[in-house]
Amino acid sequence: MGKALITDLYEIKMSYVYFKKGMKDNIAYFDVFYRRIPDNGGYVLYAGLESIIDYVKNFHFEKEEIEFLRKTNEYSEDFLNYLENLKFTGTLYSMKEGSVIFPQEPVLIIKAPIIEAQLLETYLLMLFNHQSLIATKASRIVRAALGRPITEFGARRAHNEDAAMLGTRAAYIGGCLGTSVVEAERLYGIKSYGTMAHSYVQSFDNEFDAFKEFALLYPNNTSLLIDTYDVLKSGLPNAIRVFKEVLEPMGIKKGSVRIDSGDLSYLSNETRKMLDKAGLNYVKIMLTNSLDEYSIQEIIANGADVDLMGVGERLITSSSSPVLDGVYKLSAIEENGKLVDVMKISASPQKTTNPGFKKVYRIYDKETRKAEADLICRSHEVFDNSKPLTLFDPNYTYKTKTFESFEIKELLIKIIEDGKLIYEKPTIDEIKEFAKSELDSMWPEVKRFTLPHEYYVDLSDELYNYKEQKIKEELNESI
Amino acid sequence: MGKALITDLYEIKMSYVYFKKGMKDNIAYFDVFYRRIPDNGGYVLYAGLESIIDYVKNFHFEKEEIEFLRKTNEYSEDFLNYLENLKFTGTLYSMKEGSVIFPQEPVLIIKAPIIEAQLLETYLLMLFNHQSLIATKASRIVRAALGRPITEFGARRAHNEDAAMLGTRAAYIGGCLGTSVVEAERLYGIKSYGTMAHSYVQSFDNEFDAFKEFALLYPNNTSLLIDTYDVLKSGLPNAIRVFKEVLEPMGIKKGSVRIDSGDLSYLSNETRKMLDKAGLNYVKIMLTNSLDEYSIQEIIANGADVDLMGVGERLITSSSSPVLDGVYKLSAIEENGKLVDVMKISASPQKTTNPGFKKVYRIYDKETRKAEADLICRSHEVFDNSKPLTLFDPNYTYKTKTFESFEIKELLIKIIEDGKLIYEKPTIDEIKEFAKSELDSMWPEVKRFTLPHEYYVDLSDELYNYKEQKIKEELNESI
Repeated sequence: MGKALITDLYEIKMSYVYFKKGMKDNIAYFDVFYRRIPDNGGYVLYAGLESIIDYVKNFHFEKEEIEFLRKTNEYSEDFLNYLENLKFTGTLYSMKEGSVIFPQEPVLIIKAPIIEAQLLETYLLMLFNHQSLIATKASRIVRAALGRPITEFGARRAHNEDAAMLGTRAAYIGGCLGTSVVEAERLYGIKSYGTMAHSYVQSFDNEFDAFKEFALLYPNNTSLLIDTYDVLKSGLPNAIRVFKEVLEPMGIKKGSVRIDSGDLSYLSNETRKMLDKAGLNYVKIMLTNSLDEYSIQEIIANGADVDLMGVGERLITSSSSPVLDGVYKLSAIEENGKLVDVMKISASPQKTTNPGFKKVYRIYDKETRKAEADLICRSHEVFDNSKPLTLFDPNYTYKTKTFESFEIKELLIKIIEDGKLIYEKPTIDEIKEFAKSELDSMWPEVKRFTLPHEYYVDLSDELYNYKEQKIKEELNESI
Repeated sequence: MGKALITDLYEIKMSYVYFKKGMKDNIAYFDVFYRRIPDNGGYVLYAGLESIIDYVKNFHFEKEEIEFLRKTNEYSEDFLNYLENLKFTGTLYSMKEGSVIFPQEPVLIIKAPIIEAQLLETYLLMLFNHQSLIATKASRIVRAALGRPITEFGARRAHNEDAAMLGTRAAYIGGCLGTSVVEAERLYGIKSYGTMAHSYVQSFDNEFDAFKEFALLYPNNTSLLIDTYDVLKSGLPNAIRVFKEVLEPMGIKKGSVRIDSGDLSYLSNETRKMLDKAGLNYVKIMLTNSLDEYSIQEIIANGADVDLMGVGERLITSSSSPVLDGVYKLSAIEENGKLVDVMKISASPQKTTNPGFKKVYRIYDKETRKAEADLICRSHEVFDNSKPLTLFDPNYTYKTKTFESFEIKELLIKIIEDGKLIYEKPTIDEIKEFAKSELDSMWPEVKRFTLPHEYYVDLSDELYNYKEQKIKEELNESI
């Protein structure tokens, strides 16, 4: 099925004006960036590039979609013919999937004939916003767990199928060990995990039989859900019997128990004690039930005995902050064959965009290898570490910082050039590994859950001055 | 593509145990219900039945899905053959799509051979949880707008494609006028709406030309976005010129302006004054920008001049409460040819389920036609209005209420019987109309945004006593 109509109507209405006014071949530059970090955090982890590439490369209108537009009687035949033959012939720049990204900086830049660029807006933003949101949340939850593996378990509360599938992929990039979703293993190669439901335990005459049959069928992979009736009086004693009477006689000394309700800290401590007393110190304890970075920090602070965690709805919906506000803003457009840089001016300075085609550098301290600041500049500007670099805060220009010994890296790379994919897509494990290295390159202060340090994203002198000048020009011209 | 593997791994692992233990033909009853009302509201609006029917009716494993399972080396060939031929042969009961539903009461009941029922769990819950969540949120936002039309505009912040598509369908059922998503018009027949983006305005030499070209192409449907540069100094004066100089000379006296940033109340008041002063009292004012039921109440309380609203991310993600916690709980299962009612007992009484096959009645006051209470009872119980009916609160049994003059309606109806669809699916407009009548049947106190009255959901005497007795039995047996 085509995806071209899974878009806001205004994209098509605007495109029709561009077509009618002879503007269709005018090259436009759009920046994708976000403004606010979810959960008042210090960073966003970028996910979704792979599906953005697939979407842009495959963008086209199906015959029945054109037919639908025809029946609305809104559009001329020449426009419909144009759409029917439309493919993306432009150029796409992007940061790498798994990058740590900050507010205001362009993460993707689309340079294309204006209609091609315009029609991508809605769906591309959706891919960017959702997947980056979930990758970010996952990375927070994984960090809160201090090395204990996190599995993504939220499919039943996801905002439907794509949210479950692309969400669990993003969660993996964010650092999760695996997923509950079998299809994610088949399609993406993310290992799937699963134990049993309460209904499974209830389907047997008694809890011991339910556990025993599971252990006999999955001896190397036994995880027993012990809270169907009563964790300490029923579930755990029955589980201990199964480990001692069924698995150990088979020579198997591994497995876990899962607790899904009640006071997780207390129950995990009591469970640990009883397991150890029974000589089952190798049996791991898995906790599930409304976990997120906040409750995990709390549970660990309380001294819970927890080896593994499954995280559901609060990860797959990013429930404490379920929106990433990525936008798609015009930065330049050809008018009468001449490229004109544009900007949106807003009463709130944060909503005023940066004009023109740009690039983004990241600056690292040479000793610590930690990222110190990002620098947005005009596309023709070149920075290197041959001489000291002074940055200033674009909102409070008296705040400056000079770097002497640093490395500098350009962040935006060309993915699609004149419609042709020139980027080799990394594997999902390469993306996950890259995300980890990105997070490792950030100071702990930037990654704090509460009141994180605001990472510096500064403008080059030239871009800053150019923007100030454009603001004056645009205000004079438009009014 | 098949959907059978878009499920939690544990569904398949449990099913394999059932298969191996000769339990595959045992009939199981599962209840779908939810526990907590999102946004601390007073009700949930049920959406998703149509997609649940499609999912259940089409449930099957594709060859490549079986092949994937085979390659895991976890399952026997006879089990894989069984899965390859599996179809839903059971019976599905459901309340009607668009019903107002309350915590703890079964909204759907699945009666089927246990593996068939088990394998539906994850995906069916996802359909139920997501769509009911969004329909509920939409109904709250629509009610807050006090009759002003609401259009769903959130696709770019939706949790991907299905969240955008099924979400906007749910929003329509919840009372929205229409959608921004073109494909929702093509697939579901929901009218799509759209104006222009800031980038459109910036693509022209000046704002007036941008507005003029739009009006010339869409004279009967002109909506002008007036906040690209400055609402009162630039956007509105240019819009007024277009209405006066372009449209009125064509004999057209309709259209709207849209404000997407700034102080919406203040700007709408000033805009209304300037429009009226220009003789444009027919031009409507549309507001967008981070609206939801709370901000809409605030804007209206502030006396905003607003005729239409577009609502984005806060509707399509239900951002202030993005999870509905629907669950899938076993209530009965055949063991050795005999149906045994089961329940999950929990330390927290709210998590203790109601055993056995059940039905749900709703009681209406005969005079006011308002819903007074719901009654959950065992499936063989019959209630009618031939004699007074006394209900009691299952948690505080001393709280009773006697109904003398009432109507009573059974809420669960048979949708699929022995695998065959016996229900005629209503159109989306019928569902929307039904949802409206359902909301109209509820007392305003139940629909309040703050501290709503808790609607009564009571158990029949027989179910209550049966449950108490089962709790004692189960606790004795299991430990």
